[in-house]
Amino acid sequence: MSNINGVDAVGILERMRTADERTQRALLSAVAEPGDLKIAQLVEEHGVLGVIERIALPDPMPELHARLSARLVKTDPDNDLERVQLLGGRLIIPGDLEWPSQLNDLGGAAPWALWVRGAADLRLAMLRSVAIVGARACTPYGARVASEMASDLALAGWMIVSGGAFGIDAAAHRGALAADGLTAAVLACGVDVAYPPRNESMFEHIAAGGWLISEVAPGAVPHRARFLVRNRVIAAITRGTVVIEAAVRSGSLATARAALELDRPVLGTPGPVTSPLSSGVHQILRNGALLVTCAAEVIEAVGELGHDLAPVPVGQQLHLDQFDSITRAVLDALPSRGVMSSSDVGRCAGVSANEVLVSLTRLELEGVVRRQDAGWSIVRRAVIGGAPR
Amino acid sequence: MSNINGVDAVGILERMRTADERTQRALLSAVAEPGDLKIAQLVEEHGVLGVIERIALPDPMPELHARLSARLVKTDPDNDLERVQLLGGRLIIPGDLEWPSQLNDLGGAAPWALWVRGAADLRLAMLRSVAIVGARACTPYGARVASEMASDLALAGWMIVSGGAFGIDAAAHRGALAADGLTAAVLACGVDVAYPPRNESMFEHIAAGGWLISEVAPGAVPHRARFLVRNRVIAAITRGTVVIEAAVRSGSLATARAALELDRPVLGTPGPVTSPLSSGVHQILRNGALLVTCAAEVIEAVGELGHDLAPVPVGQQLHLDQFDSITRAVLDALPSRGVMSSSDVGRCAGVSANEVLVSLTRLELEGVVRRQDAGWSIVRRAVIGGAPR
Repeated sequence: MSNINGVDAVGILERMRTADERTQRALLSAVAEPGDLKIAQLVEEHGVLGVIERIALPDPMPELHARLSARLVKTDPDNDLERVQLLGGRLIIPGDLEWPSQLNDLGGAAPWALWVRGAADLRLAMLRSVAIVGARACTPYGARVASEMASDLALAGWMIVSGGAFGIDAAAHRGALAADGLTAAVLACGVDVAYPPRNESMFEHIAAGGWLISEVAPGAVPHRARFLVRNRVIAAITRGTVVIEAAVRSGSLATARAALELDRPVLGTPGPVTSPLSSGVHQILRNGALLVTCAAEVIEAVGELGHDLAPVPVGQQLHLDQFDSITRAVLDALPSRGVMSSSDVGRCAGVSANEVLVSLTRLELEGVVRRQDAGWSIVRRAVIGGAPR
Repeated sequence: MSNINGVDAVGILERMRTADERTQRALLSAVAEPGDLKIAQLVEEHGVLGVIERIALPDPMPELHARLSARLVKTDPDNDLERVQLLGGRLIIPGDLEWPSQLNDLGGAAPWALWVRGAADLRLAMLRSVAIVGARACTPYGARVASEMASDLALAGWMIVSGGAFGIDAAAHRGALAADGLTAAVLACGVDVAYPPRNESMFEHIAAGGWLISEVAPGAVPHRARFLVRNRVIAAITRGTVVIEAAVRSGSLATARAALELDRPVLGTPGPVTSPLSSGVHQILRNGALLVTCAAEVIEAVGELGHDLAPVPVGQQLHLDQFDSITRAVLDALPSRGVMSSSDVGRCAGVSANEVLVSLTRLELEGVVRRQDAGWSIVRRAVIGGAPR
């Protein structure tokens, strides 16, 4: 088998020698399992192309070659990149402006690339994001708490990040979407795979304004190990993780543990002590997680961190020249009173829809504009010279 | 008025000059409000009789005399002591063997006496006691949690302390009684006053094995201030306080605050974040109280303190001669296997019911015997030379 495939593998290797790093990482994401620390070590030592070489050729690592070369010959990274582009997506790699730099806190376990569907700038948005996780088989109480908390966080301008499962994941996404918020689903399968299938229409809604995110290439199917390593991305990309409902031995507690290891705040909403689905949450609350009962308490906890997000000191003068010309055009387009939809802003400012969203998010982070039900408005105080909160 | 009453007041003062301190404190408890720090200061400086003098005579403290002499002339401490004795009770004062010395942690705010109904030794029992407090208008969930926790604590040999109100108080007492446990109600009225009246039969059940406790003299009626100062006694006499359900502004939180000031563990059981009756508990949990979901977690938290209760090191040899002759007689009466009721133990050992209970509680604290459903049994390991837990 290694002989026959060896020919193809060498052919792919030759193509990769002249390909850009994005294409190389697209291929790597299809061949190696995310979170494989041996591969990560090799990437560090030999670069992505060096790893592809070691997979394609029997030497110097015959075991690696035997394990992964069969996958290599079945992979077409150009096709994957084209496919995700047709779906309104892209592959983000370290070094891109849009790469969420907080993922680097994972060290050697950081993803080598993120497949993303959804137009808006991921890095900026994730600076104001909270993970909401919990049981698939949640109670109506848990679903209600997740949904209301996500709605209120979205209304306060925070992005929601979760998985794509039934239960708490879906309730959180739906709550954010109901408040016209942006939400990100980090999947254990390709961003073109609807798993579970019954959540397909929800995934479409999420991708329309927010993001579907995956470490694995388009077409990849989910399996148990992928769910587990996926959890570290949810923990790392957000400012903190809220566990809504979880049994004592539960996958969502793995996300909480990952957040703890990353020094991100771990939060939990309590429930009846008589409910087995709250017992895992109570356990982490007894072990130092912070009890939260509402979105405001979540924001108080995760907003304090601020090691990526520059704080806006109260009373500081805001200088318009700190923004690029596109952002200033977007700000000029906004009416001094009232609300304007982002598509209208784009038309007035003469900039693309994607650029409008990037600029508005940047302005929002600086407290200059505010997302509202019908669109965007200027927070006047901020422009006059004070911080909005 | 001070003239006419002056004569009677002087008569009472003359009687008190030759009375014992118990009678003097019985009078003081009927005249002064518990927790009155000015009176406490005077007791410290001039003794109880000195305070009675200053209340009875217009000089040297005309204001104190004007305020309290009318109460003085209406008080008959001998009558009060007789009345409580008829009800199976007594007045415990500092210096008594039965005085719960942990009350001294209250410093100047310590009670000057405790009226108690119930036969068993209060001091010993309170070394293994937990306060369970919470809302009067609790939910069915809160009542269930309070009742089950009290039952399980009682089965583990812990005493329950609470107030006498509807809601969490009553649920805790009823849970302990259902498990044949001993429970103490600290009242804001005299121990002969059933308030609220509908709890009268519960009070009788409590006093049959446990204790009704009050700082105010028989016949005294409850009022708002007395409820508030009563809370500090609940907090001080126990090893820790568990709040089951409480709204944000709630009297039970005052007990939690008192426990906190006394460096006693403050524990809380969470509930749905959607329940206003759990919001006060969630608030104290966010401020450092320990989340507990069951009796075992309560015991873990309050059992660690051990500053009054001598710890039983594992493997330590137990010497029978550390016990008095009555306690040894009780131990001899117990069968080496199986269970015996405390009344049978008393008959076999030839000691009174009260002495049996004191001895069994002492032996239980040392890990020698264990309270079970049908009576008491020997924990063999402890006698052979190991600690039971």
